[in-house]
Amino acid sequence: MSCDIGLYGLAVMGQNFALNMASHGFKVCVGNRSASKVELTVNRAKDEGNLPLVGSVNVEDFVSQLSKPRKIIILVMAGKPVDETITNLSHYLEKGDVIVDGGNEWFHNTLRRAKSLEAKGIHFIGMGISGGEEGARNGPSLMPGGPKVAYDLIEPILSKCAAQVHDGPCSGYLGPVGAGNYVKMVHNGIEYGDMQLIGEVYDIMRNVLKLSNSEMAAIFDEWNKGELESYLIEITSKILGKEDDLTSEGHVVDYVLDKTGMKGTGRWTIQEAAERSVAAPTMAAALDSRYISARKEERVKASTILKGPEMTFAEIPVHKGQLIDDLKSALYAAKVCSYAQGLGIIKSSSDDMNWNINLSECARLWKGGCIIRAALLQKIQDALARDAKLPNLILDPVIASEINERTAAWRRVIVVAVGYGVATPSLSASLNYFDSYRRASLPANLTQAQRDFFGGHTYERTDRDGVFHTAWTDAHKSIGDITERKAGEI
Amino acid sequence: MSCDIGLYGLAVMGQNFALNMASHGFKVCVGNRSASKVELTVNRAKDEGNLPLVGSVNVEDFVSQLSKPRKIIILVMAGKPVDETITNLSHYLEKGDVIVDGGNEWFHNTLRRAKSLEAKGIHFIGMGISGGEEGARNGPSLMPGGPKVAYDLIEPILSKCAAQVHDGPCSGYLGPVGAGNYVKMVHNGIEYGDMQLIGEVYDIMRNVLKLSNSEMAAIFDEWNKGELESYLIEITSKILGKEDDLTSEGHVVDYVLDKTGMKGTGRWTIQEAAERSVAAPTMAAALDSRYISARKEERVKASTILKGPEMTFAEIPVHKGQLIDDLKSALYAAKVCSYAQGLGIIKSSSDDMNWNINLSECARLWKGGCIIRAALLQKIQDALARDAKLPNLILDPVIASEINERTAAWRRVIVVAVGYGVATPSLSASLNYFDSYRRASLPANLTQAQRDFFGGHTYERTDRDGVFHTAWTDAHKSIGDITERKAGEI
Repeated sequence: MSCDIGLYGLAVMGQNFALNMASHGFKVCVGNRSASKVELTVNRAKDEGNLPLVGSVNVEDFVSQLSKPRKIIILVMAGKPVDETITNLSHYLEKGDVIVDGGNEWFHNTLRRAKSLEAKGIHFIGMGISGGEEGARNGPSLMPGGPKVAYDLIEPILSKCAAQVHDGPCSGYLGPVGAGNYVKMVHNGIEYGDMQLIGEVYDIMRNVLKLSNSEMAAIFDEWNKGELESYLIEITSKILGKEDDLTSEGHVVDYVLDKTGMKGTGRWTIQEAAERSVAAPTMAAALDSRYISARKEERVKASTILKGPEMTFAEIPVHKGQLIDDLKSALYAAKVCSYAQGLGIIKSSSDDMNWNINLSECARLWKGGCIIRAALLQKIQDALARDAKLPNLILDPVIASEINERTAAWRRVIVVAVGYGVATPSLSASLNYFDSYRRASLPANLTQAQRDFFGGHTYERTDRDGVFHTAWTDAHKSIGDITERKAGEI
Repeated sequence: MSCDIGLYGLAVMGQNFALNMASHGFKVCVGNRSASKVELTVNRAKDEGNLPLVGSVNVEDFVSQLSKPRKIIILVMAGKPVDETITNLSHYLEKGDVIVDGGNEWFHNTLRRAKSLEAKGIHFIGMGISGGEEGARNGPSLMPGGPKVAYDLIEPILSKCAAQVHDGPCSGYLGPVGAGNYVKMVHNGIEYGDMQLIGEVYDIMRNVLKLSNSEMAAIFDEWNKGELESYLIEITSKILGKEDDLTSEGHVVDYVLDKTGMKGTGRWTIQEAAERSVAAPTMAAALDSRYISARKEERVKASTILKGPEMTFAEIPVHKGQLIDDLKSALYAAKVCSYAQGLGIIKSSSDDMNWNINLSECARLWKGGCIIRAALLQKIQDALARDAKLPNLILDPVIASEINERTAAWRRVIVVAVGYGVATPSLSASLNYFDSYRRASLPANLTQAQRDFFGGHTYERTDRDGVFHTAWTDAHKSIGDITERKAGEI
């Protein structure tokens, strides 16, 4: 049969996305370096009711089964395997064919590949996919970026196979090649932030309020019915409620070692934020927490050397019900600030790269299928639709008033955490972000004066236009004229 | 005359370092793309008492005046100008000659240049220089990294011209090429952190305690006589005391616009920290604060939309004398944690790159000449000399007890700042770093459980060895075997 689409790379993500497409009636050809996965996938398609899916014996066979212009989604490990797969495929492809890379790829790699394929007339799309294996099978969030003409060729498939929410599929055109990977990268950075914020709230619940896992599971379950409704809150409740099968004693979560792994996308998000001069402290703190978590042996030693709060200080009055409510508000406000940072990174790169990414559309695509799906995203989508040029999400009047209503609770949470010595790097980073951003005047005047003092970097003034340098001491008067000193690097 | 050393690139830094060398009796030849700076430098050398310094009319002439093996320090803008200068010089150089780049260069550029010059037998050293123009003239901190044989050729000059402290010159061999740039990069990251921490303390003094500039100047002056003694504290006092000449009313600092510029090194430090999986939240918060400071117009708008603390909450009892003492302790403790982070970045890269950098030596080089010179560095030098393999500075018993003694004050400062709505991103980030690092158990168990839930990333357990995956829900049971799922990227 002549297939509508090819999927190359059959780890579970690939298998599941192939079955997803086939179950929507698209004829799918699957390929993989090792034949066993092809057979496995073909069998799974049979088992699921003779879905229209066929295997291939090699790359040439794979390509030959596709109708023209050929449309191929590759789902192999990011980096070198993608290059190898593209090279192998492109021997058999023609002008007008489309390759879609669905991996978590560094966007500069995607730009490079697109340029190289463009020379052969082959279209290249970098598409972020979020939702894990379950999402891949039942409807992920899809974040494609590439030539519009190529996007239009695969749009019917993507729109059908993506998660569906009330206003459409969680897939849509994000912009030129690179934009899709970029948006997915930031999605992951935001995901890191969300997970860390939840972790900090959990830490306060268990270490300050001494709540049991079941109590916490019930609270998260309750929260999932309100403003915090989201996939990550939902699974947190399920995790906390899960009993341990191995020991038949207590809950799994208490046996899980507190060392957190990571992939490249979170790291890239932070590096990109720095590259674009965008503050992203909540996500950065989440990353840092993972790095620190990995140093378990050092921490165990540190716990015997470095001291927590004295008990007198820990006697901050804590009212259980109030603190739980405060945690809910703090989590919400901190989360909004984290999303503001993430969207700020996308906005900045979109401006720099002329990608013209619609931020409201990003929020829309994240409403279903992906790990960060949350009720909050509807409000973000709406805010960014009201004003596409909004310099920062938290300047939207509705969003702003939501945060304003929660700052007292948020501050109370931080005070308790600081008093009890429970680290809240991301909750605190978000609050400091908020308290910095809302200030018409920051202490940066002193910083800039210091730079002028030791490096002759000059400064602007609040009372008149121009560029100024002060001879702060007599020694400064002898160092020569200001324009020369501006060229100094040190 | 046959010169001991050549200096190419005569912005003020270059002029001053040339005069520094000449004033120590070394015969210096200077060169520059534009002749006027050469003449200026030659005249300055005459004015300062006929120092042994000669000019050159072009690159060939410059090189021809140097005794062999030739030793050349270049001080031009980092990036392309360095490449151009090296290309121009190397036409006239021979095997065994030495080029030292004294700029703030990205270490990968230095590695690339070293490799290319090595093919011609020319030695290349990347040397960080800190101290600004004043340091360049009177004794900077020098951080050279390159082939030991080449370092030995210039050692006598560097040792004489560097700042001198009680146990020697602030110059010393740091390791292979790249190591010097790297240490200087992190020095600058630490400098950003120090400046931000001081800015936050200043912000609390002026906005919570409502101190006048003169009062603050007096406090910083007093602090500079004790444990906080450092160049940045010293100049902060001078800056706060400086009256405004332009208006003859008030102090300069109040007229300085709160927008802070930056160079690449701070940004690189953060990107490198992420690259090496090292937490560097204090420095990252300092960078973020600069980014936010630059968005002055947004902040002015935000100040009308986003609300500070309600007055009832701001009624936290504040005792002036106590808070000032607390600020001093908090600044010290936060600063130590920032240095721990910076040294952690160097340690990690040194391990990755096999640079074998002596961290105690880094601290020693920073004790004089450079922007971060501080009494604290002696304690750091001693701590790292006691145990060169110390995984983290704050695990040293002396350093640890210094922090332990100050945590109550530090916590009180954060509580006041949070209550009053004064942002303390770096003071808070340091405390959260401390409170995370000293915990044997972090909430990372929940994070890792979440990763296993949605991505099948598996986890380790606290009660037994091995790698585990939980079928958290019935849906999980159908997703296939764990080894496959570990290969999934999403």
